[in-house]
Amino acid sequence: MTAPRLYLDHAATSPVRPATVAAMAGCWYGPAGNAASSHAEGRHARQLVDEAREHVAALVGALPAEVVFTAGATEASNLAVRGAAHARRAGGRHIVSTPIEHAATRRAVQALAVDGWQVRLLDVDGDGRVREDALRERFAHGTAVVSVIAGHNELGTLQPLAALADAAHAVGALLHLDAVQTAGYLDLADVPWDLLSLSAHKLGGPPGVGALLVRDLATLEPVGGQEKGYRRGTQDAPGALAFAAALAARPYDMERLADLRARLDDGVREAGGVVIGDGSPRLANIGAVALPGALSASLLVQYDLAGIAVSAGSACSSGKMK
Amino acid sequence: MTAPRLYLDHAATSPVRPATVAAMAGCWYGPAGNAASSHAEGRHARQLVDEAREHVAALVGALPAEVVFTAGATEASNLAVRGAAHARRAGGRHIVSTPIEHAATRRAVQALAVDGWQVRLLDVDGDGRVREDALRERFAHGTAVVSVIAGHNELGTLQPLAALADAAHAVGALLHLDAVQTAGYLDLADVPWDLLSLSAHKLGGPPGVGALLVRDLATLEPVGGQEKGYRRGTQDAPGALAFAAALAARPYDMERLADLRARLDDGVREAGGVVIGDGSPRLANIGAVALPGALSASLLVQYDLAGIAVSAGSACSSGKMK
Repeated sequence: MTAPRLYLDHAATSPVRPATVAAMAGCWYGPAGNAASSHAEGRHARQLVDEAREHVAALVGALPAEVVFTAGATEASNLAVRGAAHARRAGGRHIVSTPIEHAATRRAVQALAVDGWQVRLLDVDGDGRVREDALRERFAHGTAVVSVIAGHNELGTLQPLAALADAAHAVGALLHLDAVQTAGYLDLADVPWDLLSLSAHKLGGPPGVGALLVRDLATLEPVGGQEKGYRRGTQDAPGALAFAAALAARPYDMERLADLRARLDDGVREAGGVVIGDGSPRLANIGAVALPGALSASLLVQYDLAGIAVSAGSACSSGKMK
Repeated sequence: MTAPRLYLDHAATSPVRPATVAAMAGCWYGPAGNAASSHAEGRHARQLVDEAREHVAALVGALPAEVVFTAGATEASNLAVRGAAHARRAGGRHIVSTPIEHAATRRAVQALAVDGWQVRLLDVDGDGRVREDALRERFAHGTAVVSVIAGHNELGTLQPLAALADAAHAVGALLHLDAVQTAGYLDLADVPWDLLSLSAHKLGGPPGVGALLVRDLATLEPVGGQEKGYRRGTQDAPGALAFAAALAARPYDMERLADLRARLDDGVREAGGVVIGDGSPRLANIGAVALPGALSASLLVQYDLAGIAVSAGSACSSGKMK
């Protein structure tokens, strides 16, 4: 008898949950129109998108008007960083971020650097957390946006969000949080973010669906036709409904998740391994370990053959954390 | 007893077909991984995307390696126009298009114009077809891309594709076709396009899924991580499968469609209306009419109340066709 496979890579993508499929089915098998059309079928599609928008807004503590649906978190983070920079380009052309961002943010920041923007990457410690002393030095006047990953996608490390918000707002910068791994696991309602990137497929929704929450719509300049001018292309009504359903299925039983990860961490330590990030507050849904002397690439193959799906990270193997 | 509604706006969006849902379900309820992951679940997702890629390629007469999945046709046309321009920016910085393109292409072309590119919009006649004499004048040397809508989204008018291809290739330009309304209805295998935009949701697939076919991958410069570097973000395996299934459900019974539209056109003419584009070859799946003296905005409301869903166009009301 073969043991069932252990899928431990929900941070890469999480299987679609039945509730999200049911939400899409309600859209597929009803009258289906283009939300940009004026006829009854179009108005129905628009109504479904608006309902999804209300649900998503309520679930993250925002207003419906602040929800911009996107084709995923990559587009959302791109729109956040580039949009904020574009809106504030008359300022000092400064951007603040960290060396361990997800590729979506990192590439958007790099593109701005190529365009002549000054980029300051805040030092992070061995847990991947922004160092306190990095926040002591005031951000440059005219900083457009401070873009950080709220809970790290490989380590689970939570950033000092309140301190980052204070530092950003002290110089009039917008705070963009990549909350792809955090939303649904941790309540961000008390964090004064200005821009928040979300993804559906990490939460049991379908791939190709995300959202950017924009606290004050006036802070971003429209770039397209749909979604209040923030994007182009036909609105994905079933995707929006699925996203709302995925988010509504949260929060998980975080105590159970924390307990499971603690057992895993204990086992890793007993086997001589190292748990990364355990000196800082962490999301319970993500864990990172290192086994000294073992190459992650070959470990991945061995785990896969043993029926365990995990991925290798890059944040702590690149010398970016110290 | 109420008559069933007549949905005549498939050019805006077409209801999702059961076959495309079934294709997605095969992905949702099997092992689901991120196609970028190395474990078995990730490899399975990659295999599904590759199968979808092979199907789409075979259905449009291309090679699997030439299929770049996108989040829709808007992204595909953007990538085509901007990508071609970027790849050929060392040339004369010329673009050729028409005044009646879909917004996706039009905006990409406009953005290049803002960046200093020279844009030549080919004259179109009263049917919306590029005039023969517009093709007699040789395109500028160093033209990067000739971007035209193969079959018009409001009129159905087919462009002189072979002549456009000859004219484009004579000056070394790439031919980009917006084939969103054409693919699945008309075989484009004999047209020597270089770039082809496709959309799933016009064919009974889900919204948020499209593809750019790139005849010679070396003609476009990679911009991202996934899809051979042409886009970023997690691959949408169920979306790709649904797209392939939607395309495979083609071709429709075009004779029946042509017959139905001929009856509609006859009725419009008998009622004193005008059929637009009937002097040129047209797609059988799209029709445009004008009722002299009637405003389209108020007609739309009346039709909607009478149970008929149609949309108003902009191509022939804007003075762009002459």
